[in-house]
Amino acid sequence: MKIDGTPYRTIWQDARGIVQVIDQRWLPHELRIVDLQSRADFVVAIRDMWVRGAPLIGAAAAWGVAVAMQEDPSDAGLTETWEVLHETRPTAINLRWALDEMVRVLRAVPPELRAAVAAKRAAEICDEDVEINRQIGLHGLEIIKAIAAKKPGKTVNILTHCNAGWLATVDWGTATSPIYHAHEAGIPVHVFVDETRPRNQGAQLTAWEMNHHGISHALVVDNAGGHLMQHGEVDMVIVGTDRTTARGDVCNKIGTYLKALAAKANGVPFYVALPSPTIDFRVQDGVKEIPIEERNQEEVTLVQGRGKDGTIQLVQISPDGTPARNPAFDVTPCELVTGLLTERGLCPANEAAMAAMFPDLKAAMLR
Amino acid sequence: MKIDGTPYRTIWQDARGIVQVIDQRWLPHELRIVDLQSRADFVVAIRDMWVRGAPLIGAAAAWGVAVAMQEDPSDAGLTETWEVLHETRPTAINLRWALDEMVRVLRAVPPELRAAVAAKRAAEICDEDVEINRQIGLHGLEIIKAIAAKKPGKTVNILTHCNAGWLATVDWGTATSPIYHAHEAGIPVHVFVDETRPRNQGAQLTAWEMNHHGISHALVVDNAGGHLMQHGEVDMVIVGTDRTTARGDVCNKIGTYLKALAAKANGVPFYVALPSPTIDFRVQDGVKEIPIEERNQEEVTLVQGRGKDGTIQLVQISPDGTPARNPAFDVTPCELVTGLLTERGLCPANEAAMAAMFPDLKAAMLR
Repeated sequence: MKIDGTPYRTIWQDARGIVQVIDQRWLPHELRIVDLQSRADFVVAIRDMWVRGAPLIGAAAAWGVAVAMQEDPSDAGLTETWEVLHETRPTAINLRWALDEMVRVLRAVPPELRAAVAAKRAAEICDEDVEINRQIGLHGLEIIKAIAAKKPGKTVNILTHCNAGWLATVDWGTATSPIYHAHEAGIPVHVFVDETRPRNQGAQLTAWEMNHHGISHALVVDNAGGHLMQHGEVDMVIVGTDRTTARGDVCNKIGTYLKALAAKANGVPFYVALPSPTIDFRVQDGVKEIPIEERNQEEVTLVQGRGKDGTIQLVQISPDGTPARNPAFDVTPCELVTGLLTERGLCPANEAAMAAMFPDLKAAMLR
Repeated sequence: MKIDGTPYRTIWQDARGIVQVIDQRWLPHELRIVDLQSRADFVVAIRDMWVRGAPLIGAAAAWGVAVAMQEDPSDAGLTETWEVLHETRPTAINLRWALDEMVRVLRAVPPELRAAVAAKRAAEICDEDVEINRQIGLHGLEIIKAIAAKKPGKTVNILTHCNAGWLATVDWGTATSPIYHAHEAGIPVHVFVDETRPRNQGAQLTAWEMNHHGISHALVVDNAGGHLMQHGEVDMVIVGTDRTTARGDVCNKIGTYLKALAAKANGVPFYVALPSPTIDFRVQDGVKEIPIEERNQEEVTLVQGRGKDGTIQLVQISPDGTPARNPAFDVTPCELVTGLLTERGLCPANEAAMAAMFPDLKAAMLR
């Protein structure tokens, strides 16, 4: 999407052929673009979260393999590259998928051709991600158009949680793609951005995206959404998802469930944007079956921001000696979900509809 | 309550007869006790929020009048004191009530007696607040006992939002009073403390209270409560209220409504602790009738905490140029409220029950 008028992706080759990314650790306070010129550079960038978001991690891993093939295209080098890059974020499904895909393609060609083939496949993986998110956005655009048609001349107000934005993908984002499409279609939209404690991805990333693309928005604390919905200030909610079960239970950033409850109570449609590979057909009951990661207490007790002197600082908000609990995700039961926005279209959040829309994925996963 | 074993109130006379308060601006990082020796001292302490919480503001105002009567006990001095203290927090109902009450009592006695009478009445007002909150706690204790009886030998887990603790009152607090009573009765309790963005009263005040009184607790982000309730980790919710309508709609700190929705969805009882004077019998439908204050954007975009160097700092969490919306309260409809914990007992949140328990207050208010 755009940064102050200039189109960007989160990862690209520059005119010299060097891969560049936005070092997202400095957002929202500073835009830093860095060259990734060796496998070691990619290891650091993925491991230390210069890039984050499942689709972007996959894309970065693919480019990491491509750059590694310039250094050592041998079979042994390819195997070692898979291992070294896989270790950077071992639980990231997209990372593993991208590495497996690159190895599958490269094993079929002789070492001397691998650097070129790898670059081509990495570029394709990026383009495929862009296309999936573009499709999600086009399907979501229809929903926003329908809402806009019911309130002609008025702004469509959309609430989102966490960052399922273009910064988490190669471009468009998942939950933000319908918003960007609506904006480009000239529909007036306004986005309520949940700050998304504890890590504040909404305040740091989604607000930054909206701000620099030029979309009307307001940051709100995570507590505010219920009140806004109660007072008719929200026309729809769109969030992303880390994992969605066969019946449409949605595992996403902690706090999503509370917004879904408020949406249901106030008749506000609640949509989940997802690339279909995040559907896990092996799981039915998300609340019972999905284990929720508990992360560091310090994410709760310390808050990062820019101090008066312009430097990035951590401040402690709680008393010394107070422990914290930090569940990182929650599960929104399918009955609270109005629909799943996938690249194949809008899918009701129930088992039959999902099996009907994705019979190939379901068969492959349960094989 | 206790601070590291020593009993405290939030306002008291020391051995010299001087009024002291905890300067709460430094919590949770530092306990600072200050003397308030002149009317001017009280003006600063109330206006600049060294003391906060409706009942404590009222108590401080009463003591402010008493100290002012040592300076100028004339009729003119009394009138001026009412005006000067009322200006410190003009929207605080308890402040006005305490000032009116002091003036009512003092007008009836000659100037030379006013300093002594004022000190006596101020001390009584403090004791009355303590007694109201003690009664709330005793009624709440019965509920906690009943929950404890159903899970013998196990801890009763209680979630609370914001600070309706002893720091907001003279002692005991409202929502925390049942918790302190249960703790003193030897019932094992554990408190999930919502941090309560944007001002983090949970992290700064409630966590500090629990920590120094020695009650098992964990700080959580406001997003976490739904997940915890979904997984059976919360036995009850207790919150305070700023204003409750005739039918039991509860206006409280922003985010309370989301917790009430989650409690209802998961069969967790949701209690509201309130001194009966916070019931507003003139209002029925809280969502439609109670205007919600929008506070400064900076409360959302800036977070206060203790920096690495030990000083209190503000850090900015969002990009420059991103606006914020900051509704300070929300309304929880009565159908989500299991019961109102008042000093007269547990009251169902409906118009008939409230009128039956408080006929005198209702008649006085609608007169």
